[in-house]
Amino acid sequence: MNLQEAMAIYLPLIENGLRRALASPRPTVAQHHGMMHYHMGWVDEQLEARPAAGGKRLRPLLCLLTCQAAGGDALTALPAATAIEILHNFSLAHDDIEDNSPTRRSRAALWTLWGVPQAINVGDALFAIAHRTLAETLQQGVAAKHVMQLTQAFDATCVALTEGQYLDMSFEQRMDVTVDEYVEMIAGKTAALIGLSAQLGASLAGAPDWMVLHFREFGRHLGLAFQIEDDILGIWGDESATGKSASTDILEKKKSLPVVYALGSDAGPDLQAIYRRPALTAQDIAPVLRLLDAVGALGYARRMAEEAHQSAQAELAATGLGEAALTAVRELAAMLRGRSS
Amino acid sequence: MNLQEAMAIYLPLIENGLRRALASPRPTVAQHHGMMHYHMGWVDEQLEARPAAGGKRLRPLLCLLTCQAAGGDALTALPAATAIEILHNFSLAHDDIEDNSPTRRSRAALWTLWGVPQAINVGDALFAIAHRTLAETLQQGVAAKHVMQLTQAFDATCVALTEGQYLDMSFEQRMDVTVDEYVEMIAGKTAALIGLSAQLGASLAGAPDWMVLHFREFGRHLGLAFQIEDDILGIWGDESATGKSASTDILEKKKSLPVVYALGSDAGPDLQAIYRRPALTAQDIAPVLRLLDAVGALGYARRMAEEAHQSAQAELAATGLGEAALTAVRELAAMLRGRSS
Repeated sequence: MNLQEAMAIYLPLIENGLRRALASPRPTVAQHHGMMHYHMGWVDEQLEARPAAGGKRLRPLLCLLTCQAAGGDALTALPAATAIEILHNFSLAHDDIEDNSPTRRSRAALWTLWGVPQAINVGDALFAIAHRTLAETLQQGVAAKHVMQLTQAFDATCVALTEGQYLDMSFEQRMDVTVDEYVEMIAGKTAALIGLSAQLGASLAGAPDWMVLHFREFGRHLGLAFQIEDDILGIWGDESATGKSASTDILEKKKSLPVVYALGSDAGPDLQAIYRRPALTAQDIAPVLRLLDAVGALGYARRMAEEAHQSAQAELAATGLGEAALTAVRELAAMLRGRSS
Repeated sequence: MNLQEAMAIYLPLIENGLRRALASPRPTVAQHHGMMHYHMGWVDEQLEARPAAGGKRLRPLLCLLTCQAAGGDALTALPAATAIEILHNFSLAHDDIEDNSPTRRSRAALWTLWGVPQAINVGDALFAIAHRTLAETLQQGVAAKHVMQLTQAFDATCVALTEGQYLDMSFEQRMDVTVDEYVEMIAGKTAALIGLSAQLGASLAGAPDWMVLHFREFGRHLGLAFQIEDDILGIWGDESATGKSASTDILEKKKSLPVVYALGSDAGPDLQAIYRRPALTAQDIAPVLRLLDAVGALGYARRMAEEAHQSAQAELAATGLGEAALTAVRELAAMLRGRSS
């Protein structure tokens, strides 16, 4: 099965799984769940059915594809895949508040519409429901001992997410962030959850531990590459493709990889002088871009992303699985690599 | 063992369990954990060791006491008890932001010191670590199938907490909250977690399902009584004992039980006229108190609390356990009842 065929089958299953997991249990909390449904892209701000972009469901798709690649029945991994996507959406809901980002997927963010208190609580509910959904793996006939292993991996990822987010926020005040620290940050904030997606899929296929670890590392490297490419798009991306204005990350003074690299290079002092200002304006973009260009920050970031992609491929090869089994997984990795948004 | 003896043994164990669960794994995230340690009352705002009131650890104590009462080794329940206290502290960290409360236990709240973004994330970390800690029950030799049952009860409680919080916030805008709706709110926000404490303790003692349910219902009714008494203290409490100024709940226009009751009584129209104002001042307190007195709101709330206490006692009796086994649990319930803060 190639990626296109897999997406045609799995994406509707994922969406059904998400809808079932997030259904309101009773009328008194219907609005609480309605806000979740808005965040998932199913309803508008009046909570009336009007589909919007709800995200690409990459993580649950990866989970199902790795399960299938490792010889399992992808359906066994559906609760885990659903739990992962809900966990991802929990982190987006809180990130938007923490980053003061008023929009998400070209619509108003949760907190913009319903205020910070409700948005925090909706995020917490998504966090709680993600855990509840993972436990439903028991109903797939998977042994409790196995589900507990998945639960512990899931919990470790949740902790890693908050560590990555802590580091990201702590970087805002600092000019001396190293590339190693940056990698630690995105390992927690982005790569851990993509690694988990591949890990749980392979584990639920009954793959041996060593193979599960290769899948996890595949996902982790893919996640690192994904985030670095996101950093590149955040500075040099095509506005019409990314949906957020180019250079947004400069205006927000984000310590993304190109900036971290340049701050530690010859351009460091000049870049610091700009980044120490309380706020940047459109006029600061060109000087920042010139400094990044002068030290080859784009090339550096591209090489880092390329290395992460190659590591991901090496991990995939180390699973020892044949090309036919890995087709859809490889295509998904290639799709992420080629994306412009 | 009576309550005093049990507290002398168990409280230090709980504190150790909490410190182990929340220890920083590496220097790069030491401040992230330092903020958790502040919230727990172990360090000051410079993150230097200076003990402060960290809460009474009622929930973990109840968990250990019910385990012991049901014939188990309380130590088996230590990870679960620790997880429950961390979960409780997660909810406090987020509640303080959501309620815009600048202080917690007579000190600055997390968000007051480190800002809303970090405080949200520290709360999320506590949430994640609570789950991770519960899974450590496996290391007590408890079967994975049993730990999964506890995990599912824990997850259900997490969901209930967010539902209760949603209802509480939604009540702010409403004048027509019924007593039934109020009870649904506190069942989620307060009673579910106290019920879980007793449930997990009894379950980890190996008690039969029917007895575990009686312990859970005991905890739930105790939690309802606890919250209603908290409501009473929030209006008529002794400021020097509660640590927050008397009538705080009136100034914040909280839809606590006495107010909900009075809004639905003959005093409703007059009380609504006051509660519809954008903000209340000290001058509004006396008229509100007069309206509450006129319809006997204090007596009503006291009767509701008393009923909940009696239901709790009935559930305890239904466990069929002897008086000796239940001594400390009964004393804990009595202590909660007699508290003035």
